[in-house]
Amino acid sequence: MTPARNPQLNKNGELIHLLSTEGLSRDILTHILDTAASFTSVSNREVKKVPLLRGKSVFNLFFENSTRTRTTFEIAATRLSADVINLDIARSSTAKGESLLDTIANLSAMAADIFVVRHSESGAPYLIAQHVAPHVHVVNAGDGRHAHPTQGLLDMYTIRHYKQDFTKLSVAIVGDVLHSRVARSDIHALTTLGCPDVRVVGPRTLVPSDLSQMGVRVCHTLEEGIKGCDVVITLRLQNERMSGALLPSSQEYYKSFGLTPERLKWAKPDAIVMHPGPINRGVEIDSAVVDGPQSVILPQVTFGIAVRMAVMGIVAGNEA
Amino acid sequence: MTPARNPQLNKNGELIHLLSTEGLSRDILTHILDTAASFTSVSNREVKKVPLLRGKSVFNLFFENSTRTRTTFEIAATRLSADVINLDIARSSTAKGESLLDTIANLSAMAADIFVVRHSESGAPYLIAQHVAPHVHVVNAGDGRHAHPTQGLLDMYTIRHYKQDFTKLSVAIVGDVLHSRVARSDIHALTTLGCPDVRVVGPRTLVPSDLSQMGVRVCHTLEEGIKGCDVVITLRLQNERMSGALLPSSQEYYKSFGLTPERLKWAKPDAIVMHPGPINRGVEIDSAVVDGPQSVILPQVTFGIAVRMAVMGIVAGNEA
Amino acid sequence: MTPARNPQLNKNGELIHLLSTEGLSRDILTHILDTAASFTSVSNREVKKVPLLRGKSVFNLFFENSTRTRTTFEIAATRLSADVINLDIARSSTAKGESLLDTIANLSAMAADIFVVRHSESGAPYLIAQHVAPHVHVVNAGDGRHAHPTQGLLDMYTIRHYKQDFTKLSVAIVGDVLHSRVARSDIHALTTLGCPDVRVVGPRTLVPSDLSQMGVRVCHTLEEGIKGCDVVITLRLQNERMSGALLPSSQEYYKSFGLTPERLKWAKPDAIVMHPGPINRGVEIDSAVVDGPQSVILPQVTFGIAVRMAVMGIVAGNEA
Repeated sequence: MTPARNPQLNKNGELIHLLSTEGLSRDILTHILDTAASFTSVSNREVKKVPLLRGKSVFNLFFENSTRTRTTFEIAATRLSADVINLDIARSSTAKGESLLDTIANLSAMAADIFVVRHSESGAPYLIAQHVAPHVHVVNAGDGRHAHPTQGLLDMYTIRHYKQDFTKLSVAIVGDVLHSRVARSDIHALTTLGCPDVRVVGPRTLVPSDLSQMGVRVCHTLEEGIKGCDVVITLRLQNERMSGALLPSSQEYYKSFGLTPERLKWAKPDAIVMHPGPINRGVEIDSAVVDGPQSVILPQVTFGIAVRMAVMGIVAGNEA
Repeated sequence: MTPARNPQLNKNGELIHLLSTEGLSRDILTHILDTAASFTSVSNREVKKVPLLRGKSVFNLFFENSTRTRTTFEIAATRLSADVINLDIARSSTAKGESLLDTIANLSAMAADIFVVRHSESGAPYLIAQHVAPHVHVVNAGDGRHAHPTQGLLDMYTIRHYKQDFTKLSVAIVGDVLHSRVARSDIHALTTLGCPDVRVVGPRTLVPSDLSQMGVRVCHTLEEGIKGCDVVITLRLQNERMSGALLPSSQEYYKSFGLTPERLKWAKPDAIVMHPGPINRGVEIDSAVVDGPQSVILPQVTFGIAVRMAVMGIVAGNEA
Repeated sequence: MTPARNPQLNKNGELIHLLSTEGLSRDILTHILDTAASFTSVSNREVKKVPLLRGKSVFNLFFENSTRTRTTFEIAATRLSADVINLDIARSSTAKGESLLDTIANLSAMAADIFVVRHSESGAPYLIAQHVAPHVHVVNAGDGRHAHPTQGLLDMYTIRHYKQDFTKLSVAIVGDVLHSRVARSDIHALTTLGCPDVRVVGPRTLVPSDLSQMGVRVCHTLEEGIKGCDVVITLRLQNERMSGALLPSSQEYYKSFGLTPERLKWAKPDAIVMHPGPINRGVEIDSAVVDGPQSVILPQVTFGIAVRMAVMGIVAGNEA
């Protein structure tokens, strides 16, 4: 994919929409992480706000509900001094049979600057980005099973914060990889940032062998999967998205893949443990690990504010 | 109706509530449109915000849900630097059996400056305006079948923008006029602004003959209705508000009154096509017209921000 | 309870959370009321806003819906120049099975400054206050039947405004005391502020005799209950919270305890009448009293803004 064809970039190769970590260069990913680092004085509240987006309008378009993610974007936008409009799309004109593209055209005409979009259909933010007016920037806040790029980027920020150099790391992503847009976004970003050893770990029903096409190692036992790792990313067992008789029960899953303090010893002694939340304690991860010394789950949340500030600041600063 | 009796005006004849375009003089309508014109540098984002309502509180009281209209008011208020409080009235104290007037008295006591009210009952904003504290200004955002004055005003703004002089225009309003508060608000404003030829067009079930009492021409064929017109306002076929065996199906309606490129040729070659949204493509209007060169549907949305800024700025500046 | 053990106070005895009026000293209660008095120029809109909490984030965490209370906190926070994030918790991650404490830990990590919490379970705000990060201050906006301290404080503000000296007053709380968190918060505050005669009044099913353990006089007739009183606080008959065959119907209740103009004459001629809202006209109180000269029900609402500004300003200014 040449830069000119990537819908996320303008003709100068600058980021104008964030739709996926796939197709973004190492330079762009690093620029986002560096910009986020410059906002940590805001996200940790030493500095209350910066005026970068003063007077700009951020529309939160959540076609699928997510209080947590919506809130982090709202906070990030507020700390950039933007005005935030929350649209309860599920109850809006779409309920009157208006098409997605007509809804988007209307909202564009209200002179928004940024659309933060979550949608249950993979690819919806791409469709939206192709149809918005030139002054609107689209940030994907999660689309179907496809991508969740700001979560991927905050995971990269967290890993870089604790481990610095991606080119020497082993990273294991454990759990329901099949249904996880977080896993996809992490894998693309880790690969581009030069991580030489990315493993996906779980039962065959959740981690099919053909995932190896993404350039990762597929492991079907937890011991093999996290052995010697620097980073263990545990994923939520998304019962609400799954169906089918072949899928494991929570109990079965925990028995084989639940991350307990004993099993965590298979990883390096200084390995960090991450999770995108919300956590199922006692399913994919044991409470003693969540609350233990290797967990960086809550710092991930804090870093997420700085990363979302960086993404919105960068895209809004570049012309279509 | 003398100015002293019009509940929208104070004793100096100044606008303090916007409840309907009916009963407003040509001077007041023109003042609103002129003020809106002064805000276009804000609505098109050359200027980010103006401090006209800094520190004032705008309460969005939507007893009937409308994400689109609520959003435009929220944006308009934000660009005037007001603080906006969205009240989800449907789930609020009214659900505990509190009367409308007690709810309004309570919200008045919280020292709001502007109530933006949408209600399914015709006349509710009038009742509210009669009972609010003197410091509260009421703006009707749509009440039952009665009025939707800011939509009417943005329609006037759009017509004036493209056609300048109302006194030389033929304007056709096509569709479900019977159930349309937009049509009522348009007719009153067009008549007051001196438009000599206003037509309402549609089947007898949706455009009854007695509408001619409003000073408009009633047409039951599309050809007669839009022939030689400068402006064609298409209305949404509001299936969700209609009932009864005599009403047309979407297919029947489209066959007789759907605005296609071929039929649009009956109007003047430079006629503009408007629609208040949300659009039923292929019912009241063909996609080729919506997206065609004569459509000004999306500019209507943008003008709506400036018009709502003007209305809120004007009423909040006048003392009860 | 020593100050060091009261979870509402830091080691210097300063207020860092507002969870209940119980356990707060007369000095602290008076400090809140005095601070609220300093904000009346803001709550009555002579001054639009003050910059006390500029850049701080107030999270409205309403696990139980209440448009009225949420709105007053949102207004109060806005007038302190804080940024407000409304979380629709009922539809959030808790619906995905996340525990309350994990939700709270996540929201803490987003660097909130104040959590305003309403919860149907008594004690939930205490649990939250014990687990938030040190930079987060918790304000209880109503928990189960336990406490509603800002309502209690605005009641105290109202009484002091009209009657000045608590040490000479007779105050009657009439109605569904058993289910009322407002009554509990009022009783604790009145007692601490030195009110020598507090009475709880109602049928035995709603005002059980063992309430006398709270240091109040229990009265089972309205005449005995309000005779010679300076202040009559009527409570909402909370049909939606009650159950059981022994409870009175609305009609029965009104017959015995409804506050009519005739019965109000049992109190002092200059007695004030209060109600926390929403009102059931014709159940616990007659419309002629609600709208009569002794009613201070709407001033309570206005004072509530100043009191909530004071509480948020005070707790956010003290270090854990």
